[in-house]
Amino acid sequence: MRIVFSTGDIHGIGPEIILKSFLKLQGSEHTFLVAGSFKTMTYYRDRLDLPVHLTLISSTTAIDEIAANNNRTLPVLSVAEPDSVQPGSLSAEAGKIAMLSLETAAKLCQSGMCEALVTAPLHKEAIALAGYHETGHTGFLAGFFPKSSPIMMFFDPVSKLRVALVTIHEPLSKVPELIRTMDLDSFFLQLSNSLQKDFLIERPKTAVLGLNPHASDGGVMGSEEKEILLPCIARLSSRLHIEGPFPADGFFGAGNYRHYDIVVAMYHDQGLLPFKVLAFDTGINVTLGLPIVRTSPDHGTSFDIAGKGIASERSFYEAVLLALNIAKNRTTIPAP
Amino acid sequence: MRIVFSTGDIHGIGPEIILKSFLKLQGSEHTFLVAGSFKTMTYYRDRLDLPVHLTLISSTTAIDEIAANNNRTLPVLSVAEPDSVQPGSLSAEAGKIAMLSLETAAKLCQSGMCEALVTAPLHKEAIALAGYHETGHTGFLAGFFPKSSPIMMFFDPVSKLRVALVTIHEPLSKVPELIRTMDLDSFFLQLSNSLQKDFLIERPKTAVLGLNPHASDGGVMGSEEKEILLPCIARLSSRLHIEGPFPADGFFGAGNYRHYDIVVAMYHDQGLLPFKVLAFDTGINVTLGLPIVRTSPDHGTSFDIAGKGIASERSFYEAVLLALNIAKNRTTIPAP
Repeated sequence: MRIVFSTGDIHGIGPEIILKSFLKLQGSEHTFLVAGSFKTMTYYRDRLDLPVHLTLISSTTAIDEIAANNNRTLPVLSVAEPDSVQPGSLSAEAGKIAMLSLETAAKLCQSGMCEALVTAPLHKEAIALAGYHETGHTGFLAGFFPKSSPIMMFFDPVSKLRVALVTIHEPLSKVPELIRTMDLDSFFLQLSNSLQKDFLIERPKTAVLGLNPHASDGGVMGSEEKEILLPCIARLSSRLHIEGPFPADGFFGAGNYRHYDIVVAMYHDQGLLPFKVLAFDTGINVTLGLPIVRTSPDHGTSFDIAGKGIASERSFYEAVLLALNIAKNRTTIPAP
Repeated sequence: MRIVFSTGDIHGIGPEIILKSFLKLQGSEHTFLVAGSFKTMTYYRDRLDLPVHLTLISSTTAIDEIAANNNRTLPVLSVAEPDSVQPGSLSAEAGKIAMLSLETAAKLCQSGMCEALVTAPLHKEAIALAGYHETGHTGFLAGFFPKSSPIMMFFDPVSKLRVALVTIHEPLSKVPELIRTMDLDSFFLQLSNSLQKDFLIERPKTAVLGLNPHASDGGVMGSEEKEILLPCIARLSSRLHIEGPFPADGFFGAGNYRHYDIVVAMYHDQGLLPFKVLAFDTGINVTLGLPIVRTSPDHGTSFDIAGKGIASERSFYEAVLLALNIAKNRTTIPAP
C-alpha cells in the first residue's frame, strides 16, 4: 500500500508527528509520502534532530519510482513553500498551504496513486484567514467528493470505542434545527454500511444518544427525542440493529458503550468529551462514506507545544495503522 | 449533626441506598432521619433483608427525642403512604410522595431541626405525572428559597473534580439564548463565594468551558465565546481567579481539570458526560447557594434495577459524608 500524509498547519505539531511516525513505519512493506512543503519538513527534521531522510519530488509522475526504490526515504511532494516557518503562530499562509496539501493528497487518492490519506491537524482560524469558507477536513472532503455524504467517526483501538457524530462543527445553537431537518435515516443506513465495509462488522450494534438532558426524560426537557429520534429508530429497527435514544450523561460512565459497535452522538462535544476522556492518546478520527480512505489523529494543532519536540505521535501513528487496515478491508470480498 | 434523607421516587433505588448507607453510618456521633413513607422503607428493608431498625414517627415534635436516644434506629417521618410499592414502575402517586418527602425534608432544614438534606433520586416523568410543573430537586429548592440562586455542582471526593453547571435541565435548543440573557457575572461570583464558604477554598481557581465546538475556534463556529464569555471573564478577572473559555472536548481528557478547583460547564451534558466517566461510582451532586446544606448522589432512580438489592450505595454514602463536612465548614469562622 502507498499512504499519503497531508501536513495540516505547518505551525502546529503536524510535521513533527509525521516525522516521528515515519521513524516507526519505515522499513515496513508499505510506502509513505508527504504532500506539503519540503522546506517545512526539513525545518522540523533539523530543529528536532529527527533522523529522517527526506527527498523532494516536484511532480506526481516521480512518485511511483521513488517510493518503490527506497521505503526508508520519506518523499515530500512540494505543493507550496512558505516564506518562513514559525511554530505556534497563526497565519493565512499556513492556512493556505494546509489546504493545498489536503487537496493534493485527496487527488492522489482519487486518482488511485495512493491507497489512503492520513491528515495532520489544521487550524480552522488560519484556514478562514486564508479566505476559505470551508475550514474543516470533513467539510472539504464532502465538497471534493460531491456525491458522498461523509460521516465523522472516532475510534479508539485500545478500548474499541467507536463514536460517530450526527452534526460536527456547527454552532451549538444550530444543532437542534439540523437534527430536525436532516435525513437521519440515510445517516444511520450509511453508517451501518460503512462499518460493514471498512471494519467488516456484519450487523453493527448501534446506540443513539438523546439530544436533550436525560434524553428529555419522556419529553419533560425538549421534544426532539419523541418527535425525531424515536420515530427514526422505529422506522429503521427492521433493517438495522439500532437502539435508543439513551440519556447521554451516564452512558459512557456506566460503560454501556461496550455493548455496542458504534455510539452515535448528536453533536460535537457530546461525542468527543467522553471519547477524549476514554481514549485521549490513542483516539483516531475516520471519515466514513468517502470513495477514498481517510483517517487522522483526534487532536488539534497544539500551537502551544509546536516545534518543541514533545508532541506525542501515538494518535497519528494509530491513524496510519487504521488507514492501512481499512484499505485492506475494502479490498476484501465478503463471504457469500 | 442531624441529617434528613428524602426518599426520592419510591419505585427507584432511593430507599435501598438510604438503608444500605445507614448500615454504614449508624453508631456515628451523628443522627439520621427519613422523611418519606414508612411502608416503603419497611417494604425494601424486608424485601432486601437489610438489618435496619426502623421506627415510625408521625410528627416533627418527636424527632429530637428519638434521634438523641438511639442512633442505631432510623426514624421515618411519614409524609404519605402509597397503596402499594412496585419497584421499577412509573406512577403519579410515587411522584407525589417524592415531592412531599422533599418538601418536608426542606422544611426540617429550614427550621433548623436538621443541619443538612441528602436527597435520593426522583423521576422527573413521575413528578410531571403528579401534576407538578417543576420536576427537579434544584428547581424545587430554588422555589422554596426564593431569595436564593442555587447552583448545581458535582464533586468527586476521589479525584477532587468539581463541575458546576450554568444551565441545568433545559432543552438543548434553549441553552444558547439562556447563556446570552442570564446574569453570568453573578453566577461566577456566587459560585466562588460558595466554594469559599462550603469547601474553605480561599480563592477558587475557576475554568470556564466554551459553549461551541472548540470554543468556536476564534468565532468560526458560533459567537457566544466572543460576545458573552470572553467579556464576562475579562470583567471578573480582577476579582476572581477565572480563566477560559476553553474548548470542552479535550479539557477533561488532557487532565486540565486538575489545575482548577472548579470547572464550569455551559449545559447539563457538557458537564455531566465527562464527570460521570471520571467519577461514576463516587460522584456527588451539591446544591450551592442555598440557606440549607443539600447534597445527593449523581445518579438517577435506576428503575431497571430497583428492588433487586444490587444498587450501589457508594454515591449516596459519599453525599452524606460531604453534607456533614459542608455543614461543619459553614460553622467555621474564617481566619482574620
